[in-house]
Amino acid sequence: MKLIRFSVGTQVHWGILEGANIQAIRLPDLEPTGQVFSSSEVQMLVPAAPSKIICVGKNYAAHAAEMGGEVPVEPGLFLKGANTLTHHGATVAYPAWTENLHFEGELGLVIKTQARKISPEQALSHVLGYTCAIDLTARDKQRADLQWFRAKSADDFLPFGPHLETNLDPSTSRVSTRINGEIRQDSSTSNMIYNVPFVISYVSQFMTLEAGDVIITGTPDGVGALQPNDHIEVTVAGVGTLETRIGDKA
Amino acid sequence: MKLIRFSVGTQVHWGILEGANIQAIRLPDLEPTGQVFSSSEVQMLVPAAPSKIICVGKNYAAHAAEMGGEVPVEPGLFLKGANTLTHHGATVAYPAWTENLHFEGELGLVIKTQARKISPEQALSHVLGYTCAIDLTARDKQRADLQWFRAKSADDFLPFGPHLETNLDPSTSRVSTRINGEIRQDSSTSNMIYNVPFVISYVSQFMTLEAGDVIITGTPDGVGALQPNDHIEVTVAGVGTLETRIGDKA
Repeated sequence: MKLIRFSVGTQVHWGILEGANIQAIRLPDLEPTGQVFSSSEVQMLVPAAPSKIICVGKNYAAHAAEMGGEVPVEPGLFLKGANTLTHHGATVAYPAWTENLHFEGELGLVIKTQARKISPEQALSHVLGYTCAIDLTARDKQRADLQWFRAKSADDFLPFGPHLETNLDPSTSRVSTRINGEIRQDSSTSNMIYNVPFVISYVSQFMTLEAGDVIITGTPDGVGALQPNDHIEVTVAGVGTLETRIGDKA
Repeated sequence: MKLIRFSVGTQVHWGILEGANIQAIRLPDLEPTGQVFSSSEVQMLVPAAPSKIICVGKNYAAHAAEMGGEVPVEPGLFLKGANTLTHHGATVAYPAWTENLHFEGELGLVIKTQARKISPEQALSHVLGYTCAIDLTARDKQRADLQWFRAKSADDFLPFGPHLETNLDPSTSRVSTRINGEIRQDSSTSNMIYNVPFVISYVSQFMTLEAGDVIITGTPDGVGALQPNDHIEVTVAGVGTLETRIGDKA
């Protein structure tokens, strides 16, 4: 099932997308409200409104190796700010203060119900759905700064969408990234060091996850530099494709 | 003027506190709504509801020195999750997974109106008010983990309050921390490497600050380890005192 978040005038809704029809729903139960819309009359939004965005660094061994680092002995977590979220089809300006903006294609997910100290076995029942994410990264500032803050949390540094897929096995999804049509990343979530249930459970041991929170699960190998006007497509098999264009230096 | 955030039943309000009287207001203009409460009939809340919590690491030279590190060549920023906020008078459990929980007393502030690429001269007009903060830190995990995530963002790791003071010069405020009544930190914001207007302006160059966002401005020297049952008081002169107790290991 494809879940979307959208607005009609000043009202924000969640809905189920079927072809061009949208059935408005209530979360977390996906109960229809009775309102029905056509996709041509709504404004599509990022399918998440998180209090926190949690990211897993170096979660694929081949990516840890290409970064010249070792695999963390525990999940290598960090936060992105809510200012980073941007929608499918957005153009993201190439920030003037970096010389090395990188793409990182990833599987993302949104939390459905509060999770605190849950087990890996319980974890997937707390997921609303899965989607595609681009963890834009200013690689030069990631190395230069005290922490991964500016490098990861500049405005629009997390294209996320286009919709959530509720029906996905996150243990065997192909994740691939194309830059200007050319395949640059192509792996499977089966190559994750810490799988999705483990990551959710691990985080929940010390950080209460709330409905709407976002987790992005790490990028495979093949990351690389972007240039103004590049076109990024991240595809998660079984979900769809997220498209982003890099704008001019600004 | 003392601003508080409070609830009456299921309704959350902002208000001006004068003695035991509370005048409900609307943000950002502090316009009275006409509702008046007595402090005995309301539940006090953390005076912030942020989309982001931004922290400045190593912003006092004497603290950078005691941590054995150098002063960052640019502000050393990081994020804390919204799950960390807890109110004046809270008891915070000592997490079972750390052996070295530290206190860091700080000046905190809340953003009043959206700020994007503003100058230091414009910065203070975007501040709603100032308060006391305790940046609780699992020092062992800060060193062990890939990024400062678990070390800084566990549940309740940011006692914040008790209220916001609108009328403060953040360039010369005394910030002091007492543990079980004994002075352990005692400095002035005049010793900051990057002062408050500079930090707000710097962050706003790449991260849009929204109304309600929190910035904590760094801790002076004198940080140290906590034990279960310790009583922490952080005082910002001109604001007041934030009290927190450390609970049992859990």
